[in-house]
Parts: sequence; C-alpha cells; structure tokens
Amino acid sequence: MKNYFSSDFKLGVLGGGQLGRMLLAETQKFDIHTSILDNNVNAPCAEICNTFVVGNLLDFDAVYNFGKTVDVLTIEIENVNLDALDKLEEEGLAIYPKPKDLRVIQSKARQKNFYFDNKIPTAPFSHFAYLEELVLCIENNIIDFPFVWKAARFGYDGNGVKIVRNFADLESLPNVECITEQLIPFKNELAVIVAKNADGETTTYPVVEMEFHPEANQVEYVICPARIKESVAKKAREVALKVVEKLDFIGLLAVEMFQTATNEILVNEVAPRPHNSGHYSIEASYTNQFEQHLRSILNLPLGNTESKVAGIMVNLVGEEGFSGDVLYQNIEEILKIDGVTPHIYGKKETRPFRKMGHVTIVNADVEKARATAQKVKETIRVISK
Amino acid sequence: MKNYFSSDFKLGVLGGGQLGRMLLAETQKFDIHTSILDNNVNAPCAEICNTFVVGNLLDFDAVYNFGKTVDVLTIEIENVNLDALDKLEEEGLAIYPKPKDLRVIQSKARQKNFYFDNKIPTAPFSHFAYLEELVLCIENNIIDFPFVWKAARFGYDGNGVKIVRNFADLESLPNVECITEQLIPFKNELAVIVAKNADGETTTYPVVEMEFHPEANQVEYVICPARIKESVAKKAREVALKVVEKLDFIGLLAVEMFQTATNEILVNEVAPRPHNSGHYSIEASYTNQFEQHLRSILNLPLGNTESKVAGIMVNLVGEEGFSGDVLYQNIEEILKIDGVTPHIYGKKETRPFRKMGHVTIVNADVEKARATAQKVKETIRVISK
Repeated sequence: MKNYFSSDFKLGVLGGGQLGRMLLAETQKFDIHTSILDNNVNAPCAEICNTFVVGNLLDFDAVYNFGKTVDVLTIEIENVNLDALDKLEEEGLAIYPKPKDLRVIQSKARQKNFYFDNKIPTAPFSHFAYLEELVLCIENNIIDFPFVWKAARFGYDGNGVKIVRNFADLESLPNVECITEQLIPFKNELAVIVAKNADGETTTYPVVEMEFHPEANQVEYVICPARIKESVAKKAREVALKVVEKLDFIGLLAVEMFQTATNEILVNEVAPRPHNSGHYSIEASYTNQFEQHLRSILNLPLGNTESKVAGIMVNLVGEEGFSGDVLYQNIEEILKIDGVTPHIYGKKETRPFRKMGHVTIVNADVEKARATAQKVKETIRVISK
Repeated sequence: MKNYFSSDFKLGVLGGGQLGRMLLAETQKFDIHTSILDNNVNAPCAEICNTFVVGNLLDFDAVYNFGKTVDVLTIEIENVNLDALDKLEEEGLAIYPKPKDLRVIQSKARQKNFYFDNKIPTAPFSHFAYLEELVLCIENNIIDFPFVWKAARFGYDGNGVKIVRNFADLESLPNVECITEQLIPFKNELAVIVAKNADGETTTYPVVEMEFHPEANQVEYVICPARIKESVAKKAREVALKVVEKLDFIGLLAVEMFQTATNEILVNEVAPRPHNSGHYSIEASYTNQFEQHLRSILNLPLGNTESKVAGIMVNLVGEEGFSGDVLYQNIEEILKIDGVTPHIYGKKETRPFRKMGHVTIVNADVEKARATAQKVKETIRVISK
C-alpha cells in the first residue's frame, strides 16, 4: 500500500467549495497533503488546504498543469475539463472517479441514455440540441404539457430544472441543449450513496428520504433512515448498486431516485462525489461520506456505513430579499437544542437561495429528530447585516 | 451576541499542536477565523489555520503582539507567557481560560495549594525549590521512599513525573522546583471534563477511565463510560465541578482523579483545555470536547455531553528504537475494522514515545469496543521508514 499518512503523497481536488471543505476535515484527520484547484481566490477551501492553486476548472491547461503536481486526483464538482483528465489518465495519473464516468454524468442526456442502455429504471425522456427544437415538437404535438425540462449540462440544486406547464413557462428558459421528462407522480424522493474502491469492495449507505422546498426546488430536509418499507429500501439499494456496477464506477456515487405511487424505483440522477443527501453522515454515521470518499479513491478498506443515531439535515440557504455580508440570525438559539450541529460553509456573502451551510440534527428517535429539524428551520435565518 | 460566523471576528490560539489542530476542525465547521501562534514553523496547525504566526509562547512580546491582533484569545497549551496575558486582559482583551487560573494551573505546587485551601481532596504533598532540598529531606528522614516526584512546571504526558523508590532513582532527575506526593494505591485513574461559559452555564462529560502504559507512564486506553459504580461516578463529577467552581473557571477543564481502594476520589491534576482523556468524544459524543471548548470560551450555549455510543481511545506513540520519517505500519489493517477511526496529528518525524496520533474505537457495547481497542493496539505500529 502507498503511504498516504504524514508522507509526501499529494491528493489533488478539483473544486474548492463546501464539499471540498468538508473533505478537508477528513484529509486533515488523516494528515494527507491536499492540493486544491479553484477559480475563486476566496473559495471555502482557499485558506485551509495544504496547497491552493487558482485556476479555471473548465480550462485544459489549468486542470492539466494542476494534475501534474499531484499523485491522485479527485473532484468535488463534476463540471471540469475532461480532455485534460483524459490526457492525465493516459499519462498514468490515478483519477477517481474515472474521466469516462464523469463524461457520462456531466451530461443529463448521456446519463439518461446510459440508464436505458443498461436497463436501469428511469423516467422516459426526450433530448433536444436547443430549446427551439423542443418548442417545435410542442407546436407539432409531439411533446405534451406538462413536463420536466432539464438543461443537459451545468444544472445543480434546482438551477437548470423546471416544471413546464404551458408556453409562458418556456419563455424564461435558456436556448441550450436540454432533455424533457414525463412528470412522474411520486410518493418520495430517495437517495442512496454507494462507495466502491479499486479492489472492488462496495458499500451502500442507508436509504435517505428528501423533502423539497416547493418553490426553490432545493432539498429542505434529508432524513436518515427514510421512513419507507424495508422492501422499498432494499429495491432502492439494489438499483443504486446496479448503477455503480454498470458504470464500473470507483469512488462515491450518490444516486437520487423517485419512489412512484406503485413503489417502483426510478433513477433521477447521480452525483459522482459526496452529496448533500449524505451530509447527515458527519454526525450520524460510523463512517461519514467524506471519509468514505477518501477511502474509496485511495483504495483503502471502506468503513461501516451504518448509523449511530438517526440524522436529519436542514439546508441553510440565503433568504430572499437579502444580499451581502452574511448573518446567521438566531444561530445561538439553535445551539441551545440538544443534538444540533450547524455547518457554516465559509461564504462571506449571502444571496437568495445560495447554499450557505447546513444543520444536522441527530437523535436516537427519527421522529424526535424530525420535530427538532422543523424547529431549527423555523428559527435560524440566513440574512445580511 | 457577537457575530462569530463568517464574520471579521478573530479567534487567537496560543499553541499550534495536535490539540489546536483538532480545535481547527471545529472552527472550520463554524467558519470562525482562527489565528495561531507557535514557535514551530512546521507545527500541526501551520498550514491549515487562517493565520499562522511564528513566535515563542513564553516570550512576552510574541504573545502580547499576537494578542493585539485577535478578538478572543485561548490556549491549547498552558505553558505560555502569563505577564503578556495579564497585560492584554488589563487592556480589555477577552482571554479564556483566565490568566489567573492559568497561573494556578501552570505550577503543580500552586495547584496543590489551591486544592488544600479549597478542601478539594488530593494526595498529601511536599514542595521543594530544588531537587537538592528534597535530597536533604530524605537524608534527614523527613521524606520516606517510595514517593512520586513531579517537576513543578513544564511536565506533560509522563515527562516530569517519576516514581522514586531509592537514591538511584533520584540521579536522573533535574535540579528544578518540584513536589513530592505520597504514593497512593488506587483502583482506577479517572477523568471528568467540565465546561463553563461566561453566562455560568456548566456541563460535565461522563466519567472516563484511563489505563496507563506501565513503563512510559502515558495513557494507553481511555474508556468512556468508565466501568465504575454510579455512586463513584457521581462523586467524581461533583469533585470536578467543585474545582471549576472554586477556580471560577471559564472554558474547558479536564480533571484527572484517582479512585482509591476505599472509593475516595482524589484530584491528581487538571488541564485547562481539551485533553487526551476527551478525544473519544469526537466520534462518541453528541458534542465533542473541541466544539464544547469553543462554545465555552465564546459564551455560546453549551452542547449535550452525552454519548451516542461507547468510545475508547488508544494513543499512537512512537515505538522505541525508531526515529525519523514516520510510517503508520498496518494502518490499513485497522481501517478494516468497524468503528475504528485513526487521527494522525501531522508530525512528520517520529521519536520514541512521541504522541503521533490516536485511534478512536466506538461501539454500542463498551466491552466490544475494549476488545477491538486491544486488537488495534496490537496491530498498528508507529515506526520510521
């Protein structure tokens, strides 16, 4: 085994946002030298990693040159220059997740084709090179309202996703490559995080349940364990494992799924990295998702994914009507409540719906945790000074 | 309340060792800007804090000038220049723990006097300005062998403590101010961590049990909860609370105690900061000791000190016969075991008995955790390349 601990080994991470920041907590715990590339000189990781390099993640030279300085390369955001990764991999650099998997995942259209090709259940879809093509299909009654529109690339957290019910809804959409999906009535939105290392060891985290904010289309609560039947949970884990197997994936993969009215499981989309749906694991799990990501990409033995206690995560997003220097109003009130841990992402400026942090609520009893989560949500406000 | 989170507030920490490093995990979680002063340019905190200043902690100017750049000042090691802290406090800086308490705690002789003055149970002791005075007392039969010798200052982790059974044992001791204590036969060595904030809110952690390495006089296992009677645990917590009350202490205080053959509790010594006996709390407790330290010194509400699961800590110390670039042999073997988390302190060079890290073992069942801890201890070796 390579000696990673307090050695001259260098881990490289593309992206220096909050996911990178939470990963740094784990690389610091293991004393693994971590270099980070990000375009933003004030990125959440900038001051607290071992080496910080400023550069555009979509620029070939920036990514390639950064890759030449590290021993293993990983990502905390999937929108990176893949040609640079291909060349680095050709030249022998270990890159996890693999560039070929990132290529599939970067594009929602390629993701959907992958699911169909591999008989992984997912909602039917159509693919359009431009919005104009979609409009033409609607006008010719090939596509009917309502449907879900998704930008094929660069969507995240509700950006790039919209429910379209009529022609007026189309007007605000950008003229980019997109897919449309049938609007599936579902009971629950679920997620399963799978980790796999190069030795082929594979683990799945418990199924979590996600509650979305109705307007912002951002996750409001993530609940672990999901309050669903064991048979549904089993099916969800099997589907997630199938995605990892068919991709021949190495690293951490978060699989988002719908549970339909008839208890079918349909894959919505995947993220090839630690994910919002796994943040609860920092406080609740024996091995949190960031440590597991590290273990998987370094081909270390994977950790126990079971929970010590139930965990619920509340996202802290910037309140509408506030922009500028952030103030976490009433944070001292939530600190009074047992089992409540705020995580502040290190962004000095708030904007409406910007992800600024999250709060984890743990309790031996999931219903008690859920009640506390509601209280937390109603108490803390992310505003500006 | 002062706005600490993602603001221009600056926390200063005197000392940049492993305790500072584990504290940084918490200041990063809350995005509290943290400046660190340490003499060692390669200190464990150097690369991962917001601001790192090189300077001698015992030097008046270094400490004073550093203090002028921060809003609240704390310590991760108690051997710091107290005259500088007194002046900073006079000039209005918030310093926790308070310099007057550090003055008592820095000197084992003053600590012992404090216990006697405040009727806090402790072993009888004698105080000597130099070793030569002690030798004179033995020669005149005022002190009898065996006894425990302790350097009055700068002792830590077994350094500065020795059991003296005869004149030969005296030869290796330095000619410094010291105390001697009666050798008390004890059943258990226990510790209780207490936290108190400026509002007067006080919490105690569960009593832990310490097992020492017979030769190195360093803690080998810390076990939470201690496997003792509830009545003894209650007494230990009461004694620890009395120390905090009598000192009028603010911050985190670790109180080390002996449980005698007759179930008396005697205070051994205290540490005014996060402590080795509380490291288990990172994985096992609802609020870990580093977060609690932060909450206490910033006058935030204190967190729940209960445990999610039982926790055992194994120290990783450099093996005898090895010096130089460290290698954590078999670390991948212990990573295979459920509930095992290594913490590597970021010291590139090992030396015999140097504290290089620790491993936490958690399990719902303390006896299972204890068995795993033994396995961990027998598997991992801290050697050099």
